[in-house]
This record gives sequence, C-alpha cells and structure tokens, in this order.
Amino acid sequence: MTNFYNQKDMKALRFENSKLFLGDIDIPSRESETLVRVVKSGICNTDIEIVRGYAGFDGTIGHEFVGVVEESIDSPELVGKRVVGEINVGCNVCDWCKTYDSRHCPNRTVLGIINRDGCHAEFLTLPARNLLELPDEISDNQAVFIEPLAAAYGILEQVDVSSETKVAVIGDGKLGILCAWSLGLESENVVLIGKHQEKLDIAEKGKVEGILLEEAMKIRREFDVVVEASGSESGFETALDLVKPRGKLILKSTFHGKPSWESSRVVVDEITIVGSRCGIFSPVLDLLRTRAVDVESLIAAEFSIADAVKAMDEATKKGVMKVVLSMGD
Amino acid sequence: MTNFYNQKDMKALRFENSKLFLGDIDIPSRESETLVRVVKSGICNTDIEIVRGYAGFDGTIGHEFVGVVEESIDSPELVGKRVVGEINVGCNVCDWCKTYDSRHCPNRTVLGIINRDGCHAEFLTLPARNLLELPDEISDNQAVFIEPLAAAYGILEQVDVSSETKVAVIGDGKLGILCAWSLGLESENVVLIGKHQEKLDIAEKGKVEGILLEEAMKIRREFDVVVEASGSESGFETALDLVKPRGKLILKSTFHGKPSWESSRVVVDEITIVGSRCGIFSPVLDLLRTRAVDVESLIAAEFSIADAVKAMDEATKKGVMKVVLSMGD
Repeated sequence: MTNFYNQKDMKALRFENSKLFLGDIDIPSRESETLVRVVKSGICNTDIEIVRGYAGFDGTIGHEFVGVVEESIDSPELVGKRVVGEINVGCNVCDWCKTYDSRHCPNRTVLGIINRDGCHAEFLTLPARNLLELPDEISDNQAVFIEPLAAAYGILEQVDVSSETKVAVIGDGKLGILCAWSLGLESENVVLIGKHQEKLDIAEKGKVEGILLEEAMKIRREFDVVVEASGSESGFETALDLVKPRGKLILKSTFHGKPSWESSRVVVDEITIVGSRCGIFSPVLDLLRTRAVDVESLIAAEFSIADAVKAMDEATKKGVMKVVLSMGD
Repeated sequence: MTNFYNQKDMKALRFENSKLFLGDIDIPSRESETLVRVVKSGICNTDIEIVRGYAGFDGTIGHEFVGVVEESIDSPELVGKRVVGEINVGCNVCDWCKTYDSRHCPNRTVLGIINRDGCHAEFLTLPARNLLELPDEISDNQAVFIEPLAAAYGILEQVDVSSETKVAVIGDGKLGILCAWSLGLESENVVLIGKHQEKLDIAEKGKVEGILLEEAMKIRREFDVVVEASGSESGFETALDLVKPRGKLILKSTFHGKPSWESSRVVVDEITIVGSRCGIFSPVLDLLRTRAVDVESLIAAEFSIADAVKAMDEATKKGVMKVVLSMGD
C-alpha cells in the first residue's frame, strides 16, 4: 500500500495537447473535496474517444474506479472506506443540482471528461457527496463496472420494460453487453446483435440471445425497444430498421459523428428516440452483490498504472473487452 | 346538390406520373365501403410534398375533408349524415388493427397518401368505421381542420404537458400554429417561432406568444418541449438548440430530407425525440364545438374543385395559410 503522506507526486495517464502519456504529477488536493486513493480503474470506450478528440478534454482521463478514502475534511467518517464515485459534479446551486440531478448541471465537471482530472491515476478527488461506500461482498473487479453498469441499467429509468417487451441491443462491445444483461433482468426477450461470435458467446452468459449482424439485417420493425450501443453511425440506421412503429430507440453511445437519417420514417412510424447517458449507482450495487450480472467475465486484461499507455493500446484493439488498471505496486 | 345517381363520373385532383391535373374519373364504388359526397376539402403541406415526390403516390390527392354519406351497405344509418373521416385504413386483421390503432397497420392504405384515392374530388369511399358524424355546431369550414388539428392535438397523447411546461413550436405555418394552439390549451408557456410577423400575429389569437426566428436563435436549452413543425432540416437543428437537457423534441412534419445531427448532444443531454403523425379525431370535436381553437381564421382562400390546380398553386405560395376546395357548383 502506498503511504501517500510521504508521497508528493503520483503516476497519472494524461492526455494533453492531443498526446497520451504517463505523467508524474502532484497528488491533487482540493480543500473542499475528498481525497481517494484509487485501487483499480477501468478503461471505457469514452476514454478512447477522448484520445480521438471527442469532448476536447485535456487532463487525466478515466472515470470508472474503485478506491479508498484517504482524507476528507467534510466527511471524516469516510476515511478508510472503500468507495466508488458518481462522475458528474454539479455546481450545487442550480435547479438541476437542487433537484438532485447534477448529471445535467450546466456548469458540471465530469471525472476525466469535462474540466476535472480523472481516475487513471494513483489519486483523485471528488466531493464526499459523490462517493458511495461499497459493501464487502462486492469485489474490486466488480466495482470497476459500477459506473458503466449504472449507465446501462439507467435505461430502465427512462423506458418501461416488462417481461414481454421485445428488446434488441446493437453492439457486442462492453457497453452493449452490459445493456443487454441489464434489460435481460426485466425482459424475457432480449437479443444482442453484433459482429463477433465470440463476444455474443460471452453475452449469452446472461439472459440474452446473440444474433450476428448479417442475420439481424433481415429483420424489420420487430422490436419494442432497440438500444444503439455500437458507437457507429451505421448502428443507428440498423436500429431504425429494427424498431417497431411507436417503438423506442435508445441512443446509448457517444460517438464522434453526425448521422443522417430519414426523418419521415421517425415521424410516420412515430418512433421515440431516447438519448441516455449516466445512471444512478445505488440500484446497481444490489445487482453486483447478488451476482445477478457477471461483470467480471468481461475483463480481458489487467495492467499496472506504470503500463497505462500500453493498456490503452490494448483496449483500443478490436475485440478486446474490459481492460483494468491496477494502481498497486 | 349533385345528384350522384345520374352522375357517372366526377372531378378529381389527380397526381399521376409526376403530373398534377384535374381529372374526370369514375365515381368510386367499393362494395365493402361507404360512399361519401365531399363537401369541402383542405389542402395540406403533405399534398404539396406529394407533388414534390414524397411518398411516391399516384392517384387523387387530399386527406382533409368534410362530406355527406350517400351510400353505405354496412351502415345504412349513416346515409345523409355529415361526416369527417380518419385517414388510415387498416387491414382489420393484424395486431395493430385489433388493438384499435390501425394508424400503424403495416398493410394500411391512407387517404390520398398511400394506395387510396383521396378527397380532392367530388366523391370518395372509406370504411364506415373510419367515419365520424359531425355535430351541427361544427361548420364545414371548421370540419376541414379536424384532421390537421387532431394531428396537432395528438402530441398530447404522446407527451405530458402541464400549465408550467415551457413549450416552443418551430414553424409558423398552418401545422405549427395548430400545434401551438393545441399545446396552449394545456400550458401557459407556449411560444411559436417563425419567420413571418404576420403569421405570428395570427397565431397570437390563441394562447401563444410569437417570437421571430432571429430572436429565438439566441435562446439555448430553455424549453421542456420543442415541436419541430417547420418541415425543414434547419428547424431540427434549431429545435436541438432550444430543448433543455432531458427535454422532449417532437418531430411533427414529414419532409423530404435526411437531416444530420450531433448525436452526442442527444445522448449527453438525454434528449427524447418523439416522432408524431396522426391523432385521434374524437377529442378534437369538442375543441371545435366549444370554439376553444379558432381554426377558421387560418383560411386564406376558397376555390371550386374546377380550379383545384390553381388552388394548389396558391397553397404552394410562401406565406399562404389554409386553402379550401369546395365541391359545390
């Protein structure tokens, strides 16, 4: 374990002036925030998109983590506790923040995405109100998935899904699989559509049927709910083909692009398109504690923070699932 | 009044092989359907779009009408009654039709739009189940607006609007004004955004505030609900600028085009886009009977069916509101 009191600087995966590198920077100290020693972090596709220029971010990347609280002036009872953290930090003053949805605060910072150093580093700070103590039953490797699983499970905050709802998820990457598994907890009729049989096989460990894209392309207007989680423009067009009249199309992935689409199809078939980003963490803790969702089977590789750049390379390769960074020696 | 028993053929506004003309064709007879003598019909922007190539339709155009039932084998009690008609005719067998929403029957025909001759003609047929008897208090000129008003009022079937909901409607054409008026029946905060002060002045006869587009372009993320009724691709972009995070954007107009858009904006702000087409007629009858909505003030001109081509020219001119065709001599 790192003794941070003797440590002044730390390793961090930096993206600055369009360059990605392992930096040696000061341990952060924000008086009004809580200092967390990161134990593990997970590499998300959004990290990869940021390195491609999405969001115009400069700083330490990363927003999926589990850590231990080292210092908290506001909430000293948290010190020593194992935590995860909600990534949106609102201004705490505007109407959004006052109604407890700082996810949409117009002045928010977002861990490793907007104006706030992220978690691919040995330490980070967040306000104490963003931190959630972890039950012992949840392992560090599970905990790294709480942020993306909350994003996937958050679809159920926005759309009604019952056991009969016919659901298709497009994209057999990490996010697509987490979406399919989450929706499979409610519906008996979830298919995951992807290009890789080996990923569909992983997905089928949950209550999900895998279908190769070429097969799915023959289907028209079949599904009540279609989730676009492929992160590609063509995924959106496929989603429009698959969704029923009056059905719902959930846009889950943030990709760098401007899709074009036949708007009259959306109007005539009265389709609803729902943009969906971050979810709430607390409902997901139960899913992990009860092992309703086997997230650990998605881990492809684990790297030390010292090899973070190599880890990003690995995560960027086609077909690689979750890459985890470990901050320990 | 035309004595149709002695009349074998009739005038009809035809669109065939990309040509618009006044035709002299047989009075329709469909054994399983009800024959209606059209009294008046209204020219809709969709008619104009069809003549531009939208929907690939060949036949008699027009889908907004009021008429009198002349012959009905199934429902003889309707003969002599003044009626309006729902325009979607389902197969009556599929799941959509069985659940009383033939608006989305995959095998539907649509009056003057899909595989069914329309109402800019002296006679038309529809199944008796599509016809609604009109109360005496509703004038013919009001009745011509039932179809477009139902489409506008139908937004309230799809989206919750309360007195506090901040609503913007983009587009000061007929449809935009009907949408603004309909939403103004529920919300105290409806603005209509358009390019023409004179149309905004007409709109302000309802519970609506008019704003010129150049002023509205300065507004960002202000509205809970934004209705795109301008029928233009740029209208969609403006709508995205105006809608709040977690707000709803209603796509109301069918236009011939493929807009492109920053999908990440929809995802990050968790915007919901709702395609909206036809509404149900019955709720609208009350609005007209009680004169909650002054539709007649939208009539710009009335032409005889003999001058139907000229009427279409007039309706296509910029700034012209509703053009009505009268089938009488």
